[in-house]
Amino acid sequence: MTYCVGLLLKQGMVMLSDTRTNAGLDNIAMYRKMFVFEEPGERVIAFMTAGSLSVSQNVISRLQEDIDNPDVAPENCIMGTPSLLTAAKIVGDKLADVSTEISTRMGRMSQNSTASFIMAGQRKGGAARMFHIYSEGNFIEATPDTPYLQIGEHKYGKPLLDRVVTTDTSLEDGRKAVLLSMDSTLRSNLSVGMPLDLVMIRDGECKISHSSRIEADDPGFRDMSEAWSNALRDSFGAI
Amino acid sequence: MTYCVGLLLKQGMVMLSDTRTNAGLDNIAMYRKMFVFEEPGERVIAFMTAGSLSVSQNVISRLQEDIDNPDVAPENCIMGTPSLLTAAKIVGDKLADVSTEISTRMGRMSQNSTASFIMAGQRKGGAARMFHIYSEGNFIEATPDTPYLQIGEHKYGKPLLDRVVTTDTSLEDGRKAVLLSMDSTLRSNLSVGMPLDLVMIRDGECKISHSSRIEADDPGFRDMSEAWSNALRDSFGAI
Repeated sequence: MTYCVGLLLKQGMVMLSDTRTNAGLDNIAMYRKMFVFEEPGERVIAFMTAGSLSVSQNVISRLQEDIDNPDVAPENCIMGTPSLLTAAKIVGDKLADVSTEISTRMGRMSQNSTASFIMAGQRKGGAARMFHIYSEGNFIEATPDTPYLQIGEHKYGKPLLDRVVTTDTSLEDGRKAVLLSMDSTLRSNLSVGMPLDLVMIRDGECKISHSSRIEADDPGFRDMSEAWSNALRDSFGAI
Repeated sequence: MTYCVGLLLKQGMVMLSDTRTNAGLDNIAMYRKMFVFEEPGERVIAFMTAGSLSVSQNVISRLQEDIDNPDVAPENCIMGTPSLLTAAKIVGDKLADVSTEISTRMGRMSQNSTASFIMAGQRKGGAARMFHIYSEGNFIEATPDTPYLQIGEHKYGKPLLDRVVTTDTSLEDGRKAVLLSMDSTLRSNLSVGMPLDLVMIRDGECKISHSSRIEADDPGFRDMSEAWSNALRDSFGAI
């Protein structure tokens, strides 16, 4: 499985994904689930993916191919659409197409041949927007009422988000929240694994403001994780 | 759905269940999911159930009928078996029978015609034991390594248990842990709902040491829930 979480805050967007992919418990590998398309200052779009690797890689490749192909009009590519909504629709259509193709080949629509995406982006002059795109191609959008989106193993890390994240949360606190939400998931579910990919997009910059890979032995993450565990145990003892 | 959690601690056992039952989102009702069989000082067995109400109620009724029926030998009833393992086997067999009967009638083995149980008990002179009984009739047992069992919506409340519960946790701390684990689940999942049923069995007493229903407006539970939320937010801010 997977755990990916994205926050849509007034200050900008925070996205965090794990990297564990497995085909059965005895075939575990590491794959990046965070993909970035960027024309700094003009438009930035970041994707996180959950589900079948064969579907999500294929969709990302097709999006890139269209951008590189001079025969495809810019307004039909995610980096040239007049709005991010249209870009989300393009991704949804590609996702539905690829899911259907692969599923047809597999003879049935099984869980292993579908994928879902979180898409976060901003174009110059537009608002920052974040979408959860389902394998059928339809999508929902994050709003100030529910400023986060999750895909994959979302339940373990949800209670924390429900308690601390609002649209007014700062970008830095948002970073802390997604890391702690991921930490809870890592501890309780083996199918989610380090390293992690973190991307932050400050509102209005229309570029990746921060991007990092957090390795399993990252001292900052380990310290935060331990501090959180200790704080939880202390709070538990104090109640 | 449902959330039920049981702890098997050195000091005894703690069990907590919610009461929400739904057939679709527009048909929500309240049903007790905690059932107790008790011969104080001799033997106590408590069940928590998740899944189809028609299955779980039927199984509990059959267990009671066998106890009341003079034609059924005591050693074939859960209250008279030489060991709790045999009692768990009796429950597993009944559960598998009822699941199969109802599923056959429904023409297929669907999610709505199965159920699973947590069974916790102790007989005079024996150890306290706790089992997770699956709808197929097989079961697993809680051990000092993993001293808790969950059925239903178990993911939201698992990170807390993973962090604070060990076999050495006191009965009183165990009570706090299951209530906070339930609180996280209640906040993040609508299909789990108040009131709650709490049962505690102190090791060696072979009877229900404490049993209570916690209503939605219970001031103690509300205070604990708020204190925990505040503690989480404070800890989050402090890291």
